[in-house]
Order: sequence, then structure tokens, then C-alpha cells
Amino acid sequence: MAASPYEQLEQEFRRLHAFRGALSLLRWDAAVMMPRGSADVRGEQLAALETEHHALLTTPKVARLLERAEAGASQLEDWPLANLHEMRRQRDHAIATPPSLIARLAKATARAEVFWVEAKKANDFKLLAPHLEEVVHLVRDKAALLGQARGLAPYDALVDGFTPGISTADIDTIFKALSRKLPGLINQAIEVQAAHAPVPLAGKFTVARQRSLSVEVLKALGFPFDRGRLDESEHPFTEGVPGDIRVTTRFDLNDPFSGLLGAVHETGHAMYDLGLPAEWRDQPVGRDRGLALEESQSLLFEMNLCRSRSFVKYLRPLMEKYLQVSGPEWDEANLYRHLTRVRRSTVRMDADELTYPVHIMLRYELEKKILEGSLPVADLPEAWNANLEQRLNIRPTNDVDGCLQDIHWAVGHFGYFPSYVLGAVIAGQINEAMRAARPSLDEEIAAGQFGGVMDWLRDNVHGVGARLPVQELIKQATGKPLTAAAYLRYLEAKYLEVP
Amino acid sequence: MAASPYEQLEQEFRRLHAFRGALSLLRWDAAVMMPRGSADVRGEQLAALETEHHALLTTPKVARLLERAEAGASQLEDWPLANLHEMRRQRDHAIATPPSLIARLAKATARAEVFWVEAKKANDFKLLAPHLEEVVHLVRDKAALLGQARGLAPYDALVDGFTPGISTADIDTIFKALSRKLPGLINQAIEVQAAHAPVPLAGKFTVARQRSLSVEVLKALGFPFDRGRLDESEHPFTEGVPGDIRVTTRFDLNDPFSGLLGAVHETGHAMYDLGLPAEWRDQPVGRDRGLALEESQSLLFEMNLCRSRSFVKYLRPLMEKYLQVSGPEWDEANLYRHLTRVRRSTVRMDADELTYPVHIMLRYELEKKILEGSLPVADLPEAWNANLEQRLNIRPTNDVDGCLQDIHWAVGHFGYFPSYVLGAVIAGQINEAMRAARPSLDEEIAAGQFGGVMDWLRDNVHGVGARLPVQELIKQATGKPLTAAAYLRYLEAKYLEVP
Repeated sequence: MAASPYEQLEQEFRRLHAFRGALSLLRWDAAVMMPRGSADVRGEQLAALETEHHALLTTPKVARLLERAEAGASQLEDWPLANLHEMRRQRDHAIATPPSLIARLAKATARAEVFWVEAKKANDFKLLAPHLEEVVHLVRDKAALLGQARGLAPYDALVDGFTPGISTADIDTIFKALSRKLPGLINQAIEVQAAHAPVPLAGKFTVARQRSLSVEVLKALGFPFDRGRLDESEHPFTEGVPGDIRVTTRFDLNDPFSGLLGAVHETGHAMYDLGLPAEWRDQPVGRDRGLALEESQSLLFEMNLCRSRSFVKYLRPLMEKYLQVSGPEWDEANLYRHLTRVRRSTVRMDADELTYPVHIMLRYELEKKILEGSLPVADLPEAWNANLEQRLNIRPTNDVDGCLQDIHWAVGHFGYFPSYVLGAVIAGQINEAMRAARPSLDEEIAAGQFGGVMDWLRDNVHGVGARLPVQELIKQATGKPLTAAAYLRYLEAKYLEVP
Repeated sequence: MAASPYEQLEQEFRRLHAFRGALSLLRWDAAVMMPRGSADVRGEQLAALETEHHALLTTPKVARLLERAEAGASQLEDWPLANLHEMRRQRDHAIATPPSLIARLAKATARAEVFWVEAKKANDFKLLAPHLEEVVHLVRDKAALLGQARGLAPYDALVDGFTPGISTADIDTIFKALSRKLPGLINQAIEVQAAHAPVPLAGKFTVARQRSLSVEVLKALGFPFDRGRLDESEHPFTEGVPGDIRVTTRFDLNDPFSGLLGAVHETGHAMYDLGLPAEWRDQPVGRDRGLALEESQSLLFEMNLCRSRSFVKYLRPLMEKYLQVSGPEWDEANLYRHLTRVRRSTVRMDADELTYPVHIMLRYELEKKILEGSLPVADLPEAWNANLEQRLNIRPTNDVDGCLQDIHWAVGHFGYFPSYVLGAVIAGQINEAMRAARPSLDEEIAAGQFGGVMDWLRDNVHGVGARLPVQELIKQATGKPLTAAAYLRYLEAKYLEVP
């Protein structure tokens, strides 16, 4: 019997999945293994494969098959129907931006990235400004086209590209709730912690020791070293596909936590990918449900599960064993103080769990204004500094610690930042639901037993893949629509407590 | 002005080059970095990219462009004309074998590879025989189709696929000359060496130390670590592209030479690839001139340059430094005896420079008979053992040391083996010409200065790329047509001398 249009589509998307896996490996290698001088060669390979991936997704053949499969959609079961829906979304997204615009954007962002590096070196935003202007201009065109194709406002269309199913209205509601509570909460937390400053953890912690510690913790979390790797790179990331997943971290010889928690964060991503429905792993419906949900899993692991008193119980003897440390400063209370220390910082990457959302809300506000045109690119440094001062009562003294600190806009990522906070909010709500369902969770964590957590997550979150819209997925997993309430309850409980 | 058909072809082949680079990286990763359990995922990625590469090369568009470019070929300069010729060859080669046959061959060889492993474990050729039979059947079909398309006899077409421009007649002439001289030469060498057995080099040589030694030697040879890597894998190999070249080796803790010389051998391949004409590096004419010439460069490095008295002068102090060894057995004479020791062995991979060609000539004779059908697969073990006994006066006592030792036939590589000996013969002729042109060569090597060698090779061999047919390339580089004479002179001088 001949393959149905839907079955033929599965075949096409299986091939696209293999392409995406190859692209992911090429990116992993570029960041972890590739010799310094080979970036030009890798650039050509990535461009060739990306172009071909785009071409395969946008052929008239796929369009025809989609139409025919949609005409017979009433015959399809639940999963194939959701799969068909995701195929359509991917294809419409790809076709909305003409290759000429993609090529211009690729060139403009490559140039802006170079000047972003230069501007940081010289501590001078003006070096970046004209190139960022060009990127903004092109992103605006892209947002308009995407918006038309998806029936969304331009900025919403950009957000939708990273986290389908989340609108500006959703973000505004959540961010408003956070803006109301966070400033007071930050003040109180700093006050409560003032009398309990952590004792410094002095020492040099070799990479080999930190690595061994991280491997033991990742194994406990369930990371499959027979189908995955842990390596080092300048910034932690996760690449690969569920059958070959690769996380990285960066070890700091003076800090026993940052490398470990970077690895734990990425393992959150990895476990999500590994928990996706296996029988759909090479199809669109078998993919993660967008960036905010991805980030919810990494933050759930890093913040909710591992920056906790119960995790410190599990971790302390391992630190003694692997890092060969001892002394009163390595007791549970002091380690926990290190993991939950709140401090105002001008730099997002240095921010703690409590102040981090403030940095994101600033970027969200400014990037919308830049795209609308109500904030000229040239005025960004002053707008940035004023906004941070108003939000966090701290003011960058230069561009490097201000609007030059992130690469995102230079490389064209507008609509990306909100997913960081949405991830934290989703993690807060999942955390609350999971703890309600598993009252013994803290004891399990203290014993280094994460199997129950993973089972719950697979059943309620990971295993859904992209079958449900994100809001519906969260509602089914937690029993409630997505709001900031659980997240704020979690922050209050954690940061108003004497550490 | 619109791009000419030839220019459009360059664009198409630039893309194919990027695909080949990506495929090479995926293979490198599979052998060096990939987690054990991920082979299935990688297999899907390789298959998807190979299929697409084949599809892009065989589109009607490429066929039309080739015809139009060939109609205007009289307008083309030397290099573009040769490039067009190579494009045609690649395309005709790709189109000759229908995808259905390629797919059947891929399945049959994948199965035969599994049973080759099983048969080796069980030391029983019968486990492999039916699967090898199936592979032979399909390779025969492929050879017939390739032969039709290229106007060659079937076996010649297979050889042509690995080393274009070399015929069975060429191989027969060379192998006849070797068969006449080698048996006597081997007897004499063993006799001469009998009274000068090398003193064993006892010790455990850590991977870290051997690696440092290898890196220093590779740097001296000119290997560019800013655009290349040295790693470890089960068997040494070279992957990558000229801008990102990756060699591997395997260190043996009990043997201070095998890891180093494996790395040197692969660096011969790498330096060839790096010396290819830079402005044509993403075009067919900018590629290497086939497997025999590739092998000539790795053997030139390993055998002619580095298993030499002058190289031992350079190497000895480095071994003392990096391996932390000392004692009379580490003197130059004893090291050289180790590097040139001749011993009859049943296993090709254990063979020395002098006996190695014998193993290849056996395979060449048998694989032609198998393909013709005059030697049934079932009779292979006995034919193999008898043949080796007749040629080398030594007889395998089991299949593992006999016809099961190589994977090549199981994975469908017929017509591949001769290139090993052709490479040695070409290396011998290049070595002689290079030494005539650079009388100070041995002093340079003894001083660890390889710049002059590399310049000569780039000017006379590497920089030609695929612009000339292989026989013409050798004639221009050495001033003589390819024969076994220089190679035999080299072997006699080296192995009849008292070590």
C-alpha cells in the first residue's frame, strides 16, 4: 500500500531531524573541540546545512503533502494530529522569512557580533550602534513578515518563534505581578541576610576534582553517560539529540559551585530532551515545547532542586570527598548561605535567583521600545542605566557593565529574553505541584535519589513533547493555569527565611 | 552579469564540499568523542547527509550545467578545465550506481560487518561466508555498472573509484616486478639482521608522555595545531578538511614507537591535504589525487623520512626528554634496528615495511578471483593460507590470523587494497627524486627541520591537487613514469645494509 500523505510527511521530517542533529553536533564541536583557526570552515558547513534544511522544509512537495494530509486530518489519532499541526507551524515559520532576508540578517549579525566584541574591548557603545541599528532594521522586517504569516503582532511573532503559545499579554500579566513584589522582597532578603554573611570558601579546586564531583552528581540525576557527554566550554550549553546528548560547563578554580551548578543546569535541559516521547523522537511533536519550558527545566534543576537545604545535605559529603576539603566553613548552613546569597549587581550573569528577573524585565521593556522605534538605538546606554537604577537602585558606571553586557541583540535575538523569567515562573509552579504530589521529595533529594523526581517530570512534563500548547501543558501538569503566584510563594519562603 | 554555467557548477560543488566536510566531522566524532550508545543516532545522520549529498550531485540541474559548461570548455583556462573534468567524473561516478543498489549494499555490508566481528570472536569464517557472499554479489553488480559508465573493465572500475587513473595493467606490471625481487630480498634481510637483533626497550610509556613527544614531532613536521587536532582512536585515521584537519593515533603503553609513527603516518595525509591548492580547496580539482597518492604521502612520512637513520638522530634526544628514558638500548643504532626489523608475520597489521607488500599482493590476487567467480567465497580460507605460505613461507593456523583479519571485503571495499602498495611504490619514487633535488635532506631531518621537504612536496605534489592524471603528476614530479624501480632500489639499500 502506498504511503499516505501524512506518512510521507513523517518521512520528510525524519530527514530534517537528522539534519538538525548533524547541525547540533557541528555547533557542539565548534564550541568544545574545534581548533581556533577553523571557524571559517565550520561557518561554511553550518551555512550549507542550514540552507539545505530550510530548502527541504519549504519545498512545494511538503506544502502539497501538508494540504493533502490536513484534508484527511479527521482520520488521524491524537499524536499524529498534533504532529501534523507542528509540521504546519514549522513550515509556515520557515516560509514566512524569504531567504534573501535571512541571508542579509546573517551577514548583519555576523558583523554586529564582531563590533560587539570591539565595543566591549573599547568600552564604547558607539562602535556597535550603527551595526545594531542595521540588525534592528532587519529584525523589524522579519517580525512584520512572521506576524503576518502567524496572525500575530510583530513582537509577539518573535516571542512565538522561541516559545510558541506565549503572548505579550501573558508576559505582561506575569511581569506586572513580579514588578509589584520583587523590589520589596529583594530589600527584605538583603536585610535578613545582612547578619549572616557566608564564610568564604578558600582554596584552589582543580578541574579534575570538580569534574569528578560533577559526574557523580549528574549520574545521580540520571544523566546517561553511555549516551551523553560532559565537557567544558566558555559558556555552559546543551547540544545534541536525545540519543546523543552533550552538556558542557565551565569550572572556576576559585569557586566550587559555579561549574557544578552549570552542569546541573544543563542536565535539566538534557533530562527534558531525554524524557521526550521516544517513539516520536524524530518528529516535530516529539520535540520540546519551546524555550520557556526548556528553561523551566534547567532552572528547576539548578534553583528549585539543587539550591536547597536538602540538596546541600546530599552535596556536603561529596564535596569533602571529591574536593578534599574540610573545616567549619564547609558545614551545611554555610554552604546554603553561599547558594542563596542575594546581592544587587549591574551584570545579569552575576545575578542571583532573586534579582535575576529584574535584569530580564529591563531588557523586555527596552527591546520592545527599540523595535517599535520609540527608543532610538543611540539612546540605549542612558535608557539602560536609568532603567536599572529605577528597578534595582544600582547604576552601571560604564557600557560594558550596562547595555554591552549581552550578545543577544547584536546577533538578532529579540523576543528571547522573556523566556528566562517565564522559565523561572513555570519552574516555580511545577516545583509546587511536584512537591504536593511527592511529600517525601526533600528526603529523596537529601539521599541523592532523583528517580522519583524524574518519573514525575517524565509523566507530567517531558513525555508530553509538543503535543499540547504550552499553557495547556502547564495546566495539565500542575492543575492550574500559569501565573506568577507559585513562583512568588517559593521566593518568599526561600528568601525571607533566616539563612 | 549572470553566472556562467561553469560558475554555477562551482557554486554547486562548493555546497557539496561543505557537505563532505560535515560528514567527515560526524565520522571523526563517532570514532573519537561519541558516547558508546549513540551509534544508531549517528547512523541516521550520516545516512541523511550522504543521501542528500548524492541527490545534490545527481540532480538534472547539475547534468544540464555540465553539458552547457562542456560546450563552452574551449573558453576555460587550465585549472577550471581540469575542475570541470573532475566534476564530470564525480557526477558520472555517482549516477552510475542506482540508489536502490547503494541502499542494498549499505544494508548488506552493515550486516556483514556484524558477522565479521562474530566470526572473528568464534574464529570461524563460516559465520561470515553467506553474508560476504551477498556483499560480493552486490559489489559485482556495482562494478559492472561503474565499468559501463566509465568505459572500464569491472574490477578496473572499482580501482578507479579509489585511485582514478590507475589500471589493472599498471598494477600487474608493478606487482610482477615486486614479486620477482621481494622474496629474495626478504630472505637476505632476515639473514643480515639475524646477528643484530635489537635490544628490547623495556618500560611503561604513559599516554601523556607519548602524546607530548608526538606533538613535538608533529609540530616539527609542520602540523598546524591551530587548524588541526591530534586525538586517540582505536585505529589511526585522518578526517576533516584542509582548514580543520584531524589526525588520530593509538598509544601502546609498552611500545614507544607505534603511537608516534601512527601519528606521523596520519600527518603525511594531513600535510598532503593542507598543501592542496588553497584557492581551489572547495572544488573537485582542489582535492587529493586519489587513494594511492594519499597513501604515498603517509608512507613517505612514516617509512622513507622517519624510519631512517637521520630521523633517529633527531628523535633520540626527544625520546630521552619526553619518555624519561636512558641507557645503552636507547642509542641510535638500537633504535634504528627496532624501526627496520624484518619478520615474517601472518598478520598484515603486524607486518614491517619489507614484507607488507606481500600481504597486499595476496589480497589483490584473491579479490580479483572472488569477483570473477573463479574462487568461491567458501574456499577463501584455504586459498588464503596456501597463498601466504607460497609467498612468504608462513601459514596462518586459524581464520582470525588468516582471511578474517581484515574488515575491507566485509564492508564492500574491493579494489582498495592495491593502493597500499601503489602508495609505497610512489613514495619510493618521490623519495628518490626529492633526495636528488635536496642533497642536504638527511642533515635537515637529523636537525628536525622539515620545512624544505614540505616546500618541495607542496611545489611538486600537493599543490597540483587533482589537476593532472595521477601518472602524469608522478612523471612531472619525479621526471620519470611510475615504475617499481626506485622503490626496489630504496628497499635494497635500506634492508641489505647491516643494521
